[in-house]
This record gives sequence, structure tokens and C-alpha cells, in this order.
Amino acid sequence: MERLPGFRDFYPEPLPPTKDELWSMDARNHIFDTWRAVARRYGFREYDGPPLEPLELYTNKSGDEIVAQLFNFEDKGKRAVAMRPEMTPTLARMAAAQERAYKKPFKWFSIPQLFRYEKQQKGRKREHFQLNCDIIGENDRAADAELVALLIDTLRALGLTSADFVVRLSSRNAWTEFFASRCPDATKAYDFFQVVDKLERNRAEDSAALLAPLGFKLEEVQAFITGGQPNAELQLILDQLTARGLREFVRIDYGVIRGLAYYTGPVFEAFDIKGEFRAICGGGRYDQLIKQVSGGKVDLPALGFGMGDVVLFELLKSRGLLPAFTAGLAAYVLIEDETLRAESLRVVQQLREAALPTEFSLTPAKGDKQFKRALELNAAHTVRLERQPDGAVVARVKHLATRTENVVAPGEVAVRLGAKP
Amino acid sequence: MERLPGFRDFYPEPLPPTKDELWSMDARNHIFDTWRAVARRYGFREYDGPPLEPLELYTNKSGDEIVAQLFNFEDKGKRAVAMRPEMTPTLARMAAAQERAYKKPFKWFSIPQLFRYEKQQKGRKREHFQLNCDIIGENDRAADAELVALLIDTLRALGLTSADFVVRLSSRNAWTEFFASRCPDATKAYDFFQVVDKLERNRAEDSAALLAPLGFKLEEVQAFITGGQPNAELQLILDQLTARGLREFVRIDYGVIRGLAYYTGPVFEAFDIKGEFRAICGGGRYDQLIKQVSGGKVDLPALGFGMGDVVLFELLKSRGLLPAFTAGLAAYVLIEDETLRAESLRVVQQLREAALPTEFSLTPAKGDKQFKRALELNAAHTVRLERQPDGAVVARVKHLATRTENVVAPGEVAVRLGAKP
Repeated sequence: MERLPGFRDFYPEPLPPTKDELWSMDARNHIFDTWRAVARRYGFREYDGPPLEPLELYTNKSGDEIVAQLFNFEDKGKRAVAMRPEMTPTLARMAAAQERAYKKPFKWFSIPQLFRYEKQQKGRKREHFQLNCDIIGENDRAADAELVALLIDTLRALGLTSADFVVRLSSRNAWTEFFASRCPDATKAYDFFQVVDKLERNRAEDSAALLAPLGFKLEEVQAFITGGQPNAELQLILDQLTARGLREFVRIDYGVIRGLAYYTGPVFEAFDIKGEFRAICGGGRYDQLIKQVSGGKVDLPALGFGMGDVVLFELLKSRGLLPAFTAGLAAYVLIEDETLRAESLRVVQQLREAALPTEFSLTPAKGDKQFKRALELNAAHTVRLERQPDGAVVARVKHLATRTENVVAPGEVAVRLGAKP
Repeated sequence: MERLPGFRDFYPEPLPPTKDELWSMDARNHIFDTWRAVARRYGFREYDGPPLEPLELYTNKSGDEIVAQLFNFEDKGKRAVAMRPEMTPTLARMAAAQERAYKKPFKWFSIPQLFRYEKQQKGRKREHFQLNCDIIGENDRAADAELVALLIDTLRALGLTSADFVVRLSSRNAWTEFFASRCPDATKAYDFFQVVDKLERNRAEDSAALLAPLGFKLEEVQAFITGGQPNAELQLILDQLTARGLREFVRIDYGVIRGLAYYTGPVFEAFDIKGEFRAICGGGRYDQLIKQVSGGKVDLPALGFGMGDVVLFELLKSRGLLPAFTAGLAAYVLIEDETLRAESLRVVQQLREAALPTEFSLTPAKGDKQFKRALELNAAHTVRLERQPDGAVVARVKHLATRTENVVAPGEVAVRLGAKP
């Protein structure tokens, strides 16, 4: 039986040599652990919601056309439900429900698995994990700076540098001002942004033809994008990033507009410098969404970003930033004398109780076979009990990197390997 | 908009005072972190599979009646799919697909979220998380002992003792022998086990009436259960647990039979001693399952257990073993002089780069308000920059538990708070 197309199996390393597409659970944990650690350093707190939500939560926000991309169905209670395609609606629902209990602004993160019924294409998954970091209840652009700094430090903590990635920072407000300064007819704004959003994908002559009836020349739109002069809100963000020493990671780039979704202020995307991959991360302000999801009951400004695991994994791999992961064993206990199995088990237990990852052979095996296994597993030490001529039992503790050996009492092995006495 | 019934929202602590049933994300992380840490100490490696699988993966194993309990549907590609109700079929699929690359026995764990369309009852969820630990490819009962030891140490690592829980150890083989020694007609075995499985739930006279035509007296069946003499395979397990110093956590109890599912050898369940909750954990040997799931291609003995988060959470809470969780802040940086905001931001950045969780007020606020916030957040220290009469800037670092204060250069705050220089 096969897994479903677009879904992933995560195996322990070393991964099997196979044509089947397998993913490393160890690399996934490395990425998740880093995500969590950096978010917590920034004072962000973790939350989670259900992976299955009422379908309405998504159609309310994105319209019915989103249904074509969802894993949605009717459950046995006749409810229209969908596997979550993004986290922001769940966050907005949860924040609106309990916002009075949390002092504003509150900074929350989550690592949900998200699901979309994408067309089958190479490298296109139907699920991925995504770090979501959001700040709720703060209008000041200092919050936008905090969020962009977190994004930068998350990527740096994974080993990426300013030679690897850049954050392209833009502003919906800058575009609105640009539009208003040249076109007094606000009803044309939606069509204008539609064209701008697709500039990078469409042919120049097609974009020019679409802009002309709106009263814009392609050249002036392009000049605005490449001009890259920060407006007032972006300047505030840049100043705070400069104070943090993070200015070099950011570029003003009005080519980023983040679709036509719910963003209202500064928006940004992170890309690899070489342009080999899709966006690593995207986000911005969405000051109206919580009001919308709560049916007008709760009105809080908010901003956030999402960083998926698939592109990030590919980028880290291509930059050699994913080490070979092992079981991280402190010790492999060799049992060469079966009359000492019970005493060896006691040592295994002592090591594990001292939080030292420890392995041994569950069944009798030749000494050299056990030793080979200890090497394969990359254990830091071997421990071998030995009965002395006088009947006393001692433990031989070998450090495998240096092959130095110490002889200690069996009860002292854990302390020898670094456990607190 | 409400979340779906039977699903949970996980919020950061302190949880809001509300009648709505909210769950603590911090407690969940505490449980998951402990699960992972102990499994790794035992040399178990983590894996994961898709939360959505072909429906056939479950109907093949459990028959069509399971469909009534599933979140199943037809996806947009006309595939019959189901949200995973348990992890073992996915594990069996994954192990069978790649077993040649992993040296036997391999020990794997996972923390999947599982889904069942349960009838709506108080305390009955439609999703839960479950620690799954399995050993693949080992016939020796030493593997069963290793697995039971892991189960015990997982609960001990959460603070539970032999006064809180017991592992009831049983054996399918012991029951088969008991049956065969009294009834030569093997075709009656299935009916017999049906009755035994329901002994604890059914009335005595009903059980007796069902046993009589099979040639058994209720009294002899009950005597076998309460007699609790270990058979040979259970004695091997007990001996190894004794060697590890874990004997006191285990009781032979043939009342445990683990339904009529796929178990083939030793089986076990962990319960709270007071009998207040459902089983904390259940597992055993299922030597035929991988063969079945792989269509006969791969034949490997296997054993495992599943430990759900809901009962465990309730038990830990009732025993006072869930502390109040905080953001774990090393520092709250007070910005009382706005002309020092940029320099304060630099200190915030230095602390965070030194992996010290650090908070500050994103916007100007009164000094006492900021200090109050630092106390609410339970920060270990406050840090406040101050301009001296000579123009130099110093940092006042206050340890909040003792209220002792030190004055250092701004660039030295991180080292003062424990960062490596």
C-alpha cells in the first residue's frame, strides 16, 4: 500500500538509499527545534488549534473559490469541514475568543501542518509544516520591526547569512499613496493592484496593455518598484532594524505585494539571494482580519508571517547546512559475558535515568558485532562489564573518539559519562 | 465561529478564566518534551507519516466496521481517504517499505495526532496525541522488557511513582494455553476470547451463561486471572525488569487481553492505581501485522505501545504534577529613557543572540508599568540603560528574586546573565 500523493513520510537518519522520496525526521526536528528556540527568545508563546475546522472559517475570509484547493468534506454529523490550509483564520478565531485574558500586544507562534489540494507537480506538496509567528494588538510599526527581526534571526540560527537570503520589505500603504497620487478614481485601485501583483509573472507588453486604461505607464510603475525609497512606516522599521544590527538583511522592494489577500500595511517576503527557490517566508500586517473573523466583535490590529518547511529544507540542504544526524548516544553497553547481563542491564538503567541516551544488544551477540554496532550508531562511549579474578565486577569505559579507556565501578559509570552525581 | 466539537484549542499559560474548555499548550509541550527525551534515552528514533492515509490501510486491518468511527471522505482525485485513527498501520507501511535499510531490531517512536469520530460524550475527544513506541524485528522477549521499561520510565520522568500507576502485564499465549488445556476444540477459541475480553464490563451471570456452552466455568476463568502466575515469556520479562530495578511497577494480570485486535504475545496496559481514569497506555506484540499490511512481502515480528495525551494530562493534573508554566524570560529590558531606545534594542538583540529569552515594551510606557509587566511575566532579571552625568551609558541589571542590582557596561549584560563570553 502506498502513501497518498503529495504527502510525506519522515524517516530516521541515515535515510535509506532509494528512489522513493523520503524525508528526514531528524532534519525536521532540527528545523522545528530552531524555530521554537528563536521564537521563545523573542518572548513568543506557542499555541495550536485543530487541524480540522469548519469550512466556513476559510470561505468567509477567502471566498468560495478557495474550496477547490481544500481537503474538505462533510463529516458524520453533516458539518462542512476542511483540513486547515493556513493558520491565520484559526489564530484569529482563538485570539478573538480569549483576547480579554491576554495583555496586548501578545506574541504567539505555532508550527501547524497545513493542507492544500494542489495540482500534482514536481516538488509541489499537498501538506507542509509552517512556522507562524504573529503579534496581536499593536499598531506601532515597532511590532513590524520586531517581527522582521524574528524572521531574520530564525534564518540566521539555522546557519544562513546575508549572503544566503534577503528580506524584501514593501508597504501596501506606499502603493495606495502611489496610486492615489496619480489616479483620483479609487474604484480602479483593485484592478491596478491586480496588475501590479502579476508584474513579475506576466509579459511586459501584457502588463503595459492592462495599465494603460487605468492611466498608468509601465515604466513609472517599474521605476517606483526599483526606486525603493522607504515611506515613513518602512523608515521606522528600518531604523529599528539598524539599531539591532540587522539592516543588511533587508531591502526595500515594492515588487512584493503579497497577492490581494488581507494585508493592510507593511508586507515582506524572504528569498534566497540566488533566486533558486520560491519564497522562504511571507507576511505582513492584517489589521482587519480579526474583526472580520469575529463578526465585528473584536477589533485588534495584527501582523504575522508564515515560513514553510519545504523550501527551507531545500535551501539548507543546498547550502550544506543540514548535518548528518545520529541517535546521539552517550554509551553503547557491550554484553560479552552473558552471566553479567543482569548487572549490565542495571548499568543501562542507571545511564538512562541520568538522561544519557544508551543502547545495548537485546540478545546475545559476538563481542566484535556489538562493537561494530556501537561504531555504526556513533556512540560516544562503550561500557563493558568484566568479572575480575577475585570475583569483583568492574566497568571498562572507552571513549571511542580517542580510544582511551578507564576502569571504574559499575555504579560510577553514569558519573564518569557526565551525569550529575 | 466555533471550533468543531471534540477538537481542542491549546493556549499559552496562564489560561484564561473561562467556562470554555481550553488546553494548555505549555503543558502539552512539557509532556511531548518528556516523551521525546525518554524515548531517545532508550535509543528510539523518531519518525512520522501523513495524517491522511488511504482508507484501505485501516479497513484491511480492522474490517469495514471501523469506517463508522473514521473521519473519512473522497478527495478531489476520487481517492477514498481517512484521517489516521491510529499510527500502527502507518508504521507497518513505512517499516515494510524500507526495512532493508534499517538494522534489526529498530526502535522507533512518533507523536502523531489521531482522529476518531466518537459519539459526543463528556471528556470524549475526537482527536488526541499519542506517543507511539515500537520495536521492529526482534522475537526475543528482551524486546518486550525493553518496551515495558520505556513505558515505566516515561511515566516516572513525568513525576509519577509506583504509588500512582501500575503496568498490568498479560499474555495472549497464556490464554491460548489455558484454553487448549481445557478445550480441545480450537474453533471455539474465538468465542471464548470474546467473553473473556468483556468480563470486566459484563454481569457475572451473563458471562457464566456464555462460558458454559464452551465448557468453561466462570470460577476457573476468574481464578486463572486472579492467580496471576507468570508463564515462561512473562517470567523472562519480569526477570529483566527486576535487573533494571523496575519490578515494583508491574503486576501480572490476565484480565488484560487488549480486545480482539492484532496482538499475538505479551500484552500490557498502564493504569492509575486509584482507578479514576481510563488506561494511560496499552500495547503488546503484533507479530503478524507487518506481513498483513505489506501483503505478505515483509514478515517481521513487532511490538509497541500507545500512550494518549488526554488521560495522562488529567492524571498529572490530579496529582499536582503540572507546574505553572511561564515564558521563561531571562530578562525584561526596561526603556525609561526614550533617547536610549536604539541602544536598548541593541542590548535586547545581544541577549537574544546569546539564546536568552528577552522581552521589552515595543512602545513608550511608564517605568512602573514596564516593571509591573516584567514581574507578571516572571522575568528573572530586569535590565535598564541609564545615561551617566558624564554621558556614558551603563546597564543596571536587577535579579528580581533577590532584588540585587549590578551595574555593568551595556555590552556585558549578556555575559552577566549567563551567556558564554
